[in-house]
Amino acid sequence: MASTQIRFGILGCADIARKLARAIALAPNATITALGSRSLEKAKKFAADNNFPAEAKVYGSYDAVLDDADVDAVYIPLPTSLHVRWVIAAAEKKKHVLLEKPVALNVPEFDRIVAACESAGVQLMDGTMWMHHPRTAKMREFLSDSERFGQLKSVHTIFSFAVSPDFLANDIRVKPDLDALGALGDVGWYCVRAILFAMDYELPKIVTASCDPVFNEAGVILSCGASLKWEDGKVATFQCSFLSHLTMDITAIGTKGTLHVHDFVVPFQEHVALFSASSNAGFNDLVTGWVPSPSEHTVMTILPQEAQMVKEFSSLVASIQTGSKPEKKWPTLSRKTQLILDTVKASIEKGFEPVEVLP
Amino acid sequence: MASTQIRFGILGCADIARKLARAIALAPNATITALGSRSLEKAKKFAADNNFPAEAKVYGSYDAVLDDADVDAVYIPLPTSLHVRWVIAAAEKKKHVLLEKPVALNVPEFDRIVAACESAGVQLMDGTMWMHHPRTAKMREFLSDSERFGQLKSVHTIFSFAVSPDFLANDIRVKPDLDALGALGDVGWYCVRAILFAMDYELPKIVTASCDPVFNEAGVILSCGASLKWEDGKVATFQCSFLSHLTMDITAIGTKGTLHVHDFVVPFQEHVALFSASSNAGFNDLVTGWVPSPSEHTVMTILPQEAQMVKEFSSLVASIQTGSKPEKKWPTLSRKTQLILDTVKASIEKGFEPVEVLP
Repeated sequence: MASTQIRFGILGCADIARKLARAIALAPNATITALGSRSLEKAKKFAADNNFPAEAKVYGSYDAVLDDADVDAVYIPLPTSLHVRWVIAAAEKKKHVLLEKPVALNVPEFDRIVAACESAGVQLMDGTMWMHHPRTAKMREFLSDSERFGQLKSVHTIFSFAVSPDFLANDIRVKPDLDALGALGDVGWYCVRAILFAMDYELPKIVTASCDPVFNEAGVILSCGASLKWEDGKVATFQCSFLSHLTMDITAIGTKGTLHVHDFVVPFQEHVALFSASSNAGFNDLVTGWVPSPSEHTVMTILPQEAQMVKEFSSLVASIQTGSKPEKKWPTLSRKTQLILDTVKASIEKGFEPVEVLP
Repeated sequence: MASTQIRFGILGCADIARKLARAIALAPNATITALGSRSLEKAKKFAADNNFPAEAKVYGSYDAVLDDADVDAVYIPLPTSLHVRWVIAAAEKKKHVLLEKPVALNVPEFDRIVAACESAGVQLMDGTMWMHHPRTAKMREFLSDSERFGQLKSVHTIFSFAVSPDFLANDIRVKPDLDALGALGDVGWYCVRAILFAMDYELPKIVTASCDPVFNEAGVILSCGASLKWEDGKVATFQCSFLSHLTMDITAIGTKGTLHVHDFVVPFQEHVALFSASSNAGFNDLVTGWVPSPSEHTVMTILPQEAQMVKEFSSLVASIQTGSKPEKKWPTLSRKTQLILDTVKASIEKGFEPVEVLP
């Protein structure tokens, strides 16, 4: 058992790292070995507050974590503008990298990240937790079913939450020097990933930003949306916002079925998640009701989705330690997601003109 | 009781008239008095098949219904291109008019319809049944609640159903000389009305059609969408289609709440309907669940929504018969809906340019 425990270091004391620290503790094949912060005091308090193992090391720098030979992999929840520097530094020290989203400020930056990880032979995966929920696999089964869902025609996704005045003033996600993509990089990332998921990761041909983005005074996006178009006529839309009530929807419509999920990023409850599927529905004779009605699908999970993610990542790292190559699927999905974000941003900058997606 | 029974004539044997004939029979203040079709045989069969009262008269023309002094009101489910002619003819004979949607091919046509009805002092109401479901009033309560829903930010509506090859070849809704607005006039009408409903009937300032409409060979819209923008930043989108699986969604997002309904046009079941409301939702401490979760609201109705509509219409007619003026609310809502359809069409014709809504 001990030989398959992947030993994690965490860079920084971001709020989201509390959730990941718990996930690492819950995952059967991972353990927390080290935490680094620019402030040793802050790191000590964070470790104590979050039930780190007694033997976990606490450092006053990120470099110290990367220099620790007992660390196999690092979780990097730093602001996006720091990703290139610290992922490259981690890769050079042969640390596998679990990286928060958005993975980079743009695709060229992400390509530098990927090149460093490939060159070092380390696994790279982004922190899109919902991808690892067993519900997601069940939704894939439905979307892939030619009898129950048919051919996909359109996907509509929404992720919003109404942030506090303090968030609007101080959060890193509204600061141009830290997370310059704002709501597009944060909540928009999930919307775009969900669209790509439903489209089985086929890239759209054209992206057109909606002509209604909201920016803060520093020019960071607080709310935006876009429509995406595929060569064969499939379409998608998304809306992401820091200014509207908590909403996280996927609506996927095929020729024979419809999928609805209203909590795709963070399930309402941790151990049980639902989605609604409607198949081959029509009306009764007088059009006063549906035949059949949609059905609710319930998916249980003992490990929460973020622990499933850590487990999957750690399992890939363990394989690499015994001679396998890194799994390219994950950085490929990250890059496609980042590419769409870049294209939405380009369309906004071009006055909401349609922009071609150039892989 | 007998004196408050509004006596209906029906023009034509459209499929939807079967549903309305039952609704008239169910409504406590309405009765079927006459049916007219261009074919007397067809009218006789329709009356027999649909359990018309034995005393109901059956005619071989629409004019005969309008000439019948026992008819107070007519239900007109004729193809849209015939609406101007037959509503004006009905109004001239002082018949109140319950008119299927879309009410006209464009606003100037509808203005002629309204002028005729106003001049004759008769009630005009369109056949948007879901407006009369008690669920709709409950949804309004939620949307109007400054504590539970806050300020409306965006609305997204979808209505699609995947039609048969026979429909694509023969249905009046894909024929340029009958229902030239195609899917926009049929399913799109409901999407637009739902957006206006959520916006409390405030008109948007700008409408931009999505750059992905599908047309049939005759140039009739089979699928389209649009985004709408209000002066104060509120936004809406809709998607309507004859080519995707049955879906009918309203998603309305405010600053403090979210409304979801998945069967807004025709409830899954006739006597009980649901909507989901989420209010002041956030995450638990580690962002592994929602606090609180959304709640389901159940609304019962003994009379199906189409009978509620007939009842409301008949009640207005009864008031007019005792001296009241026609209720202008209903033609005003019809005109706003038609105006948005016209603007979407204009945007499509202008190559998906944003088009100003000119009331």
